[in-house]
Amino acid sequence: MKNENIKTLKYFLKDDIRQETDFKRTDQNMGVPAPPIEKPCPLDAKKIPLIKPEAVKIGEVSLKTAILRRESRRRFSNEALSIDELSFLLWATQGVRKWQQKNALRTVPSAGNRHALETYLAVFNVDGLETGIYRYLPSQHQLVLESSPDHLKERMTEAALNQKFAGSSAVTFIWTTISYRMEWRYAEASYKVIALDAGHICQNLYLACEAIGAGTCAIAAYNQQAADRLLSIDGEDEFVVYMAPVGKV
Amino acid sequence: MKNENIKTLKYFLKDDIRQETDFKRTDQNMGVPAPPIEKPCPLDAKKIPLIKPEAVKIGEVSLKTAILRRESRRRFSNEALSIDELSFLLWATQGVRKWQQKNALRTVPSAGNRHALETYLAVFNVDGLETGIYRYLPSQHQLVLESSPDHLKERMTEAALNQKFAGSSAVTFIWTTISYRMEWRYAEASYKVIALDAGHICQNLYLACEAIGAGTCAIAAYNQQAADRLLSIDGEDEFVVYMAPVGKV
Repeated sequence: MKNENIKTLKYFLKDDIRQETDFKRTDQNMGVPAPPIEKPCPLDAKKIPLIKPEAVKIGEVSLKTAILRRESRRRFSNEALSIDELSFLLWATQGVRKWQQKNALRTVPSAGNRHALETYLAVFNVDGLETGIYRYLPSQHQLVLESSPDHLKERMTEAALNQKFAGSSAVTFIWTTISYRMEWRYAEASYKVIALDAGHICQNLYLACEAIGAGTCAIAAYNQQAADRLLSIDGEDEFVVYMAPVGKV
Repeated sequence: MKNENIKTLKYFLKDDIRQETDFKRTDQNMGVPAPPIEKPCPLDAKKIPLIKPEAVKIGEVSLKTAILRRESRRRFSNEALSIDELSFLLWATQGVRKWQQKNALRTVPSAGNRHALETYLAVFNVDGLETGIYRYLPSQHQLVLESSPDHLKERMTEAALNQKFAGSSAVTFIWTTISYRMEWRYAEASYKVIALDAGHICQNLYLACEAIGAGTCAIAAYNQQAADRLLSIDGEDEFVVYMAPVGKV
């Protein structure tokens, strides 16, 4: 490893940047209106309602048991996920717990409640959903069908650097960031906290899977360009940061 | 914000580095022995046994309830944490679930099972523990007393950029990274995954707090130098990455 590289890269994990950032000049403090809390979708987009958390039909598992059982699972059965189960996973990872005026308080924490992540799904085997790329709309607890790419299984696998379980799942979660949602408040101090937030979300996915007889194994090693292309995002204002294939075990 | 800065900083969140890293030349692939799975401590160090997860006396909470109840909590009562409760929090965040030969499988996932994080505690109000800086030894499920600094409350608060709840907690978790544990396998591709791992851990802490009538609020905005000094670590091979004060609510 080149030592110069290491020094620069380690900088991302430190919080020296806090003292080097001029927070008086963030967009928030310059009076720029806050960006929307989720990526808007076209008015004519096809939306699919999800089951509310209080109504989902899933088994109960204790927190301690979920933590004890959690492990990285890369082999899945052919059983489909139900809409109840998928609804629960989405709620557990990015759902809105309650509204405080315009602030959506989620099931996971985020620096300054900025929540700069979006959840996409590559759906392969979920009851009642056709194969395709969907996106979760936390504000309404809905899905929107984003696209129906040909050869989704192969493209998903390619995007995951040929890790085959990404294409043999019931559904693969793909998290992107729209980093401006964080930059609006935190400017240069945004990037580490976005990664921390992705970690919060993914841990809840691991645990929530244990409640529905499913499993996951997060993927941080992926093909950035192929993943961004698959979601038709620009790779600059919005880009993939983390993935997690889910299936019954 | 300077656009050049932003571009450099965003790079941290992307996985382009995967294709730019020569994994043939990592220390692992050059035959360098793996570093220890936890930071060693002196043979005469004072170790404190913790309660095993199967024996801890804590209430049960369902996963769904824990997720639903979780919120950022910065106000704590004066009630102490019991050793059972602290043992549970440490197990939930970094405990060993099982051993696979020399591999310690934890309650949280980590890229390549490298687990490049250490857990320090600033203990203020835990039954049977004197005030001081402790470190968790996952391999033995023990604590080691690291130091007993004067004015710990004030120094902890300073390290947390004067966020007072960091010094008014029962215990403040402080996570550091010994980044070489990750670099040994992943070289330049180590830093984002260390942040993701810190997020996994912290989410389990949030949920585990809900099982013991406690709460937490993670701190990503801290004084890097003051935090590293407080733990007597060098700020280069090992440095603070995240914090979370915990108290009864």
